[in-house]
Amino acid sequence: MSNCLVAQSGGPTAAINASLAGVIDAVIRSNRYNTIYGSINGIQGVLQHKIISLNSTFENDADAIHTLMTSPAMYLGSCRYKLPSYTENPTQYEFIFETFRQMDIRAFFYIGGNDSMDTVAKLSEYAKSINYDIMVVGIPKTIDNDLVETDHTPGFGSAAKFVATSLLEIAHDTYIYDIESVTIVEIMGRDAGWLTASSALARNDYNHAPHLIYLPERPFSTFDFIDDLNKLLKSKKNVIVAVSEGIKDADGNYIAATNAVADKFGHAQLSGTGKALEQLVKSTIGCKVRSIELNVLQRSAMHISSLTDITEAFKLGQEAVASAEMGLTGIMLTLNREHSTNYNCSIGNVPVSEVANQAKSVPREWINPEGNDVTEDMINYLRPLILGEPKIRFKNGIPDYLSIKHLI
Amino acid sequence: MSNCLVAQSGGPTAAINASLAGVIDAVIRSNRYNTIYGSINGIQGVLQHKIISLNSTFENDADAIHTLMTSPAMYLGSCRYKLPSYTENPTQYEFIFETFRQMDIRAFFYIGGNDSMDTVAKLSEYAKSINYDIMVVGIPKTIDNDLVETDHTPGFGSAAKFVATSLLEIAHDTYIYDIESVTIVEIMGRDAGWLTASSALARNDYNHAPHLIYLPERPFSTFDFIDDLNKLLKSKKNVIVAVSEGIKDADGNYIAATNAVADKFGHAQLSGTGKALEQLVKSTIGCKVRSIELNVLQRSAMHISSLTDITEAFKLGQEAVASAEMGLTGIMLTLNREHSTNYNCSIGNVPVSEVANQAKSVPREWINPEGNDVTEDMINYLRPLILGEPKIRFKNGIPDYLSIKHLI
Repeated sequence: MSNCLVAQSGGPTAAINASLAGVIDAVIRSNRYNTIYGSINGIQGVLQHKIISLNSTFENDADAIHTLMTSPAMYLGSCRYKLPSYTENPTQYEFIFETFRQMDIRAFFYIGGNDSMDTVAKLSEYAKSINYDIMVVGIPKTIDNDLVETDHTPGFGSAAKFVATSLLEIAHDTYIYDIESVTIVEIMGRDAGWLTASSALARNDYNHAPHLIYLPERPFSTFDFIDDLNKLLKSKKNVIVAVSEGIKDADGNYIAATNAVADKFGHAQLSGTGKALEQLVKSTIGCKVRSIELNVLQRSAMHISSLTDITEAFKLGQEAVASAEMGLTGIMLTLNREHSTNYNCSIGNVPVSEVANQAKSVPREWINPEGNDVTEDMINYLRPLILGEPKIRFKNGIPDYLSIKHLI
Repeated sequence: MSNCLVAQSGGPTAAINASLAGVIDAVIRSNRYNTIYGSINGIQGVLQHKIISLNSTFENDADAIHTLMTSPAMYLGSCRYKLPSYTENPTQYEFIFETFRQMDIRAFFYIGGNDSMDTVAKLSEYAKSINYDIMVVGIPKTIDNDLVETDHTPGFGSAAKFVATSLLEIAHDTYIYDIESVTIVEIMGRDAGWLTASSALARNDYNHAPHLIYLPERPFSTFDFIDDLNKLLKSKKNVIVAVSEGIKDADGNYIAATNAVADKFGHAQLSGTGKALEQLVKSTIGCKVRSIELNVLQRSAMHISSLTDITEAFKLGQEAVASAEMGLTGIMLTLNREHSTNYNCSIGNVPVSEVANQAKSVPREWINPEGNDVTEDMINYLRPLILGEPKIRFKNGIPDYLSIKHLI
């Protein structure tokens, strides 16, 4: 029997460990592989010989698998590393495949986003070129939801649930004072507006906030923004705005950059987009204004993750193992939404070359004509992805996540 | 039968509605009062005749009471308003008590922090001076935990649980990369360090972050800070720092202020404390550095509140009604920790004059000699306050809080 390897790469999400749990669960259940190894810090771990066996921790311990499913960020650590082209620079590939050969690795599961799919593509092509028999399977994840060929990506639903919940709680916090105010919430997503759009899910029968939503897919005009605010402030005391960190003006300059400030040493300091807009509102409208950057909490807040998201991520991990057993390589798994009344996704796959180095933007028709909100179609697309709450275990008042002692 | 009035004031907490729910529950169960009125936006609502009856919404609806218990911020809205001295300016008092007389208000429950207790003191004294028979009872709340004469304040435990949970999740997010980094988490509490101290509750058997904790009770030295970091970076890749927004240098200047930057128009811009320290680390140590401001989420994130906190807040609300029935006025209720092995708090009360306009700092002996961490005694004091998780109901993937349509 041969062995297999799994690794994680790119930015953290609440669901990327659920996919790892799915891979480990399926490998342990099958009797195809002797040992399942984990590479620490993505493909870098292979290059640096930081590889651990996962069997002892997870075999015969369903509880460890379950705790892993509901632990944030990456149990195996991450990297932001893009392999060079193997025709130009084969050294690293030779090293990686010598390691694979020595360890008899015959399947490699890589959980990640765009750059990770590039790695899947290159490794599977190189393996073919040297006739090394290995199945290389990509499992998607990213809070940005910007991978093509899949209805959505694991990790996005949980981040969206955190954004929507926080927006609702910020609204409760904001409405209590009887004074005019503008609250600006800055949300991650430098090029794609999916996560910022999910702030619309905070709306319910009493809360209509966010009242304005600006995505990076549309040029941002500070003039229109102030105009939008002034119109709303005629009828509303408290206006709440959701804005992507990546909004740019018509010339393509980041709003954060055009409002860069200098520190006391004269160095330019790139303040956040929210902070830049806060200054703008302060100097033009003059009412109470506050900006809130959700920051890394939106990708790591496991305690408010989506059960739909976590479940799908786990199933994708299991399916990756089944795909390798079926002899599929150089693929990325996809989630395909069924066209039925109830939300339902099946798992498919595409050649990873069709996915790598591409990005899926929010379609123009899901943004309103004024460019300051999303449409009902967008909300219908988003809503099912945040449904359900996984059971998180607590110990001493804080979540009882799986130990990452090996990374520290 | 006479009537009673309840109102909320100051900054929001996750527990202040639980105290309101306790008051409403006890009033409905007793048959001492005909109607329980709520003043919108604290004492300002009385001055502006914004008073609503609460009976219809909550009578015979245990579900509404329960939903109120687990809804963030203030159902009745808030204000930041301090009454003038009644000897110097009696006009507002005359108006307030004329309203009380017309509505036959014979008990007034005010849930709030320091300034609200000042209002309780003044109203109860004025009532005595004009011989108006009314019981004025203060119910404490503040995420800052800085009220004297009570072991701790409702709202603090929930904020502390959010801070500790977020710190742990940020740690998971941070440890994944194999590069040197400093992460700075800015926590609320301008003058008191209790909430920043609670970040220590994020530590468990594998996570020792935050590695450094700086409270406003000790002068902050940027030199010592960089020295602390450099020492830790010798043995640790990722250093995580918890810092109070209110830290000041030895001359009493806010660190945020001394690092103020100018925007492109030349206006001084007070960046946050975390941002100021981020710039400092960038320019001196030069490694990857990120600052995270927890912002209003730490006071409004009901979805990760403490059951201990919510339960105590509810009981204080009930006890306030019992106290009024016993003829107590001009008091604030207190939580008194029993000296036993298991955590247990009884409810007491003190004359509100002993509480108003005072603040409780973190004692010197609960900060380590180096001034960059808290002691085991502090952790033992804090731990019980964050225990337990209330059941939060979800609808469409977001928390199903009680409607605050009347505030919007």
